[in-house]
Amino acid sequence: MSDAEKRLRGRPRDSDIDRRVLEVARDLLAAEGFAATTIQAIARGAAVRSSAIYRRWPSRIELIEEAIFPGLDDVAVEPTGDLRRDLERFVAAYRSVVGTPAGLAALPALLSTYHSGADRREPAARAWRSARPQFRAILEAAPAADLDPKLDADDLFDLLVGAVLFRVFIGSQGLRAGAPDRTVDLVLRAARPA
Amino acid sequence: MSDAEKRLRGRPRDSDIDRRVLEVARDLLAAEGFAATTIQAIARGAAVRSSAIYRRWPSRIELIEEAIFPGLDDVAVEPTGDLRRDLERFVAAYRSVVGTPAGLAALPALLSTYHSGADRREPAARAWRSARPQFRAILEAAPAADLDPKLDADDLFDLLVGAVLFRVFIGSQGLRAGAPDRTVDLVLRAARPA
Repeated sequence: MSDAEKRLRGRPRDSDIDRRVLEVARDLLAAEGFAATTIQAIARGAAVRSSAIYRRWPSRIELIEEAIFPGLDDVAVEPTGDLRRDLERFVAAYRSVVGTPAGLAALPALLSTYHSGADRREPAARAWRSARPQFRAILEAAPAADLDPKLDADDLFDLLVGAVLFRVFIGSQGLRAGAPDRTVDLVLRAARPA
Repeated sequence: MSDAEKRLRGRPRDSDIDRRVLEVARDLLAAEGFAATTIQAIARGAAVRSSAIYRRWPSRIELIEEAIFPGLDDVAVEPTGDLRRDLERFVAAYRSVVGTPAGLAALPALLSTYHSGADRREPAARAWRSARPQFRAILEAAPAADLDPKLDADDLFDLLVGAVLFRVFIGSQGLRAGAPDRTVDLVLRAARPA
């Protein structure tokens, strides 16, 4: 986080407490589901006061967004210049975040709060954007023969990540279990100069 | 629905009541959200007894799946043999189903019930598969120059629909609002013989 971002957030951070709270949130999501992952339950599990959590996150939604999305900052995929290999590593890293028990429980429930009922809200841009810079760096390192310079990195990102999420959340649920994943193949074909 | 499917479901259908119940469910989803769309509220709105609803659908989840997904059977996209045009019409038809207020409210909440907490369940295969036959027919009508015969229709479906859903449910929420949609372009590039 930049100094400017820290000032904007305007709250002191104790990284030990942060880490513990986020870990408890992930454990609760995995074991009990989204609805049971309340601030009170997280505070109890992390042995902190609710007020300490509210000082750090405006609501449980922002807490949960941060709990399930940090992985893509940590699992940094350094580009090697081999586009296929880099995209496969990127997909594996992305899947290892959204496909965890906590991610599977939280992600659709988060989407639901963005679109449904009285709690409707905007997603945290930081959390949802977090993988885009990594993806862009991978494209920048790709050889000219593999990537049409006219293409937009965000368009290719949406294509790849959309397909990955679709398979994790819908396709893999009994419909196409066990089918080989050719998503990276197809994105490579789309990316090549025409 | 085939006769075999009717027998499997094993319940008599009164299409007037069915239609009214599904319409009330869509209205409730749009106006009140997923949580408020209970069997009791639907029964009240449709002026039928709850028992009449339970005779038709095992739970509100199956009712809601049928309420938001029928569109893709109705909005049949007849292939013309112009792959770009057919895919654009398919995407418009798909978006007109999932992007309705009822679809936006229900779809992530349904995903959530498939993955989260004690109510975890399998999605209704019929509902989630309903657009695949249309998509396959579009590919079958495509000229050889536009479609590599080695490609799998389901892989291309996941790529296209994954990107559409990603943009409807995440990308369009403030992150990329107003960006031109190049999804069909990219899928055409991926589909072309290498």
